[in-house]
Amino acid sequence: MSKKITIYDIAKKLNLTAATVSRALNNNLKISENTRKLVQETAVEMDYEQNTLARALKSGKSYNVGVIVPRIDSNFFASIIRGIEEELYPKGYHVIICQTHDQEDLETGNINSLLNAQVDGILMSISNAKTKNNIFSNLSQKHIPLIFFDRKKDIDGVSSVTIDDYSGAYEATKHLINQGCKRIAHLSNDRLLEIYKNRYLGYKQAIIDNGLEFDESLVIETRSKVEEGKKTMKILLDMETRPDAVFSSSDFTALGAIQEIKNNGLRIPDDIAVAGFSNEPFTRFMELSITSVDQSPIEMGRIAAQVFLEEVGNDNKIKTKKEVVLTPELIIRKSSRKRI
Amino acid sequence: MSKKITIYDIAKKLNLTAATVSRALNNNLKISENTRKLVQETAVEMDYEQNTLARALKSGKSYNVGVIVPRIDSNFFASIIRGIEEELYPKGYHVIICQTHDQEDLETGNINSLLNAQVDGILMSISNAKTKNNIFSNLSQKHIPLIFFDRKKDIDGVSSVTIDDYSGAYEATKHLINQGCKRIAHLSNDRLLEIYKNRYLGYKQAIIDNGLEFDESLVIETRSKVEEGKKTMKILLDMETRPDAVFSSSDFTALGAIQEIKNNGLRIPDDIAVAGFSNEPFTRFMELSITSVDQSPIEMGRIAAQVFLEEVGNDNKIKTKKEVVLTPELIIRKSSRKRI
Repeated sequence: MSKKITIYDIAKKLNLTAATVSRALNNNLKISENTRKLVQETAVEMDYEQNTLARALKSGKSYNVGVIVPRIDSNFFASIIRGIEEELYPKGYHVIICQTHDQEDLETGNINSLLNAQVDGILMSISNAKTKNNIFSNLSQKHIPLIFFDRKKDIDGVSSVTIDDYSGAYEATKHLINQGCKRIAHLSNDRLLEIYKNRYLGYKQAIIDNGLEFDESLVIETRSKVEEGKKTMKILLDMETRPDAVFSSSDFTALGAIQEIKNNGLRIPDDIAVAGFSNEPFTRFMELSITSVDQSPIEMGRIAAQVFLEEVGNDNKIKTKKEVVLTPELIIRKSSRKRI
Repeated sequence: MSKKITIYDIAKKLNLTAATVSRALNNNLKISENTRKLVQETAVEMDYEQNTLARALKSGKSYNVGVIVPRIDSNFFASIIRGIEEELYPKGYHVIICQTHDQEDLETGNINSLLNAQVDGILMSISNAKTKNNIFSNLSQKHIPLIFFDRKKDIDGVSSVTIDDYSGAYEATKHLINQGCKRIAHLSNDRLLEIYKNRYLGYKQAIIDNGLEFDESLVIETRSKVEEGKKTMKILLDMETRPDAVFSSSDFTALGAIQEIKNNGLRIPDDIAVAGFSNEPFTRFMELSITSVDQSPIEMGRIAAQVFLEEVGNDNKIKTKKEVVLTPELIIRKSSRKRI
């Protein structure tokens, strides 16, 4: 190998001071984005090898931020991550992602992995309501900011960005009632998680407020998968009096329900109207487009990242818990729009 | 804070030796998965704080593996990651993911971030054909295995797992010809990337082998986005003699093309038949389901992970370059199946 390249070589080539090069390589915010980019690119070109471990130990920062989501193959979570990246990348941070597949042991393991990776903070949507809190206290002892988005736990000092799931569900259910539906089923999910509990409560309240009878047997807990939606819809169709509408807490189960309804020769929305939740792109792509609740995920990600930046820049020992709640938007499409 | 928990406390509680606990915490493969899990869970429960940095320095391993993909919100890449996780998780590894959004500076930055995070290896699908090789030589100097999947570069000693894009494209095009199509357009992508070059070449050869005229004006380079597919189809429909079929190197552009064809009141497949590439789930969900080429992504991920495990376990200084090529499968659906 040839002579080792130093920051002085880079400084000389770019006609900058060594201090500027060092700051740029360390993502110091005092350096303009253009200079930072130029220096970092030149460092790569010149094959400069930074002692990253030494740098991390010195600055105490890795400029890596960890994001943990239940799954990456949902547009909702992918868009949140996009929002986080859009906000953090210009500030010199890189985003590394872990998924849990809703498995508790993977959640714990991912947090440890990100701690191993020396991240400066963790932004996460929890997978399991039963996850023990001491895994999180580990982070707070190390002064590593933790921010929840979408699926959260209530922990002192831990900020969160969520949407108003209750009102999203309320509006979707009210819309189905306005279309003339009287027997509205609800495909729910693990209600130990706040988001699903609140969607259930919003649905229930809309039924009651509009003078319909609330029938617990029409509420079925399932998982957010197309196949599960099919199976659950089968149960509902086998009932003595079948529902005339379905409000699903997930677009994926809504899609499964739609497939099962069609397989049974019933018409959507005439025989059964369907509404989902999350506004996944496929709900719009389908010929029979699916009514859904948009959760503005990019904005959610951006705000979560902003909260992280505030916390990581805050040397104050007093931690303020911030709870940002966004308003969802009902998008009415063919699967529920009746011509009445 | 209470008394610091040591591995001896954990050993005592579980009636194991301290050595076993230590090995389990360090993901030593000599320890059974059950014991490892039990010890790690107990450690979390007891609030045991491992000095991860010390551990990483001692074992020289972080048991984190980095995966870099152009985007996470495509079922293809998400499934590859799933395959990688399925293979690596039982071996005690955790997977951390970065996405590049096809931006070269993000690609370089992600590699640096993962090096910062002390990963034991990087599995990646490259975003940009122009990425300089010295960013990769950095990895080989540090003896950190690098394995390419799907989108690769030819680098000495770097293994890869890909599919036979040429034959996938050839079969899809031949199928369109068998349906009676004579003027087949091709929505291509950056052909500096091998996968798109090979899809183009497979398409071209199928045209020539079947006695049709190859018309370069029917080949348009675009990006893998629904909106881009729409725009490109608009150009094709405005031609004096419009195509009677489209073979797209991406399902997303195929979907955009379908939307544009429908907007123009033309019938699919009767007026224009369409085939995509990747077998994204939406191709199957659509009422007008889309013909596509399946790339068995989970298998691709699993094999890439197996190659990593071989390389990371290989103390031999001689590196063997492995090139695994999987066979794709054409899935014929409504968008191209004519009743002739």
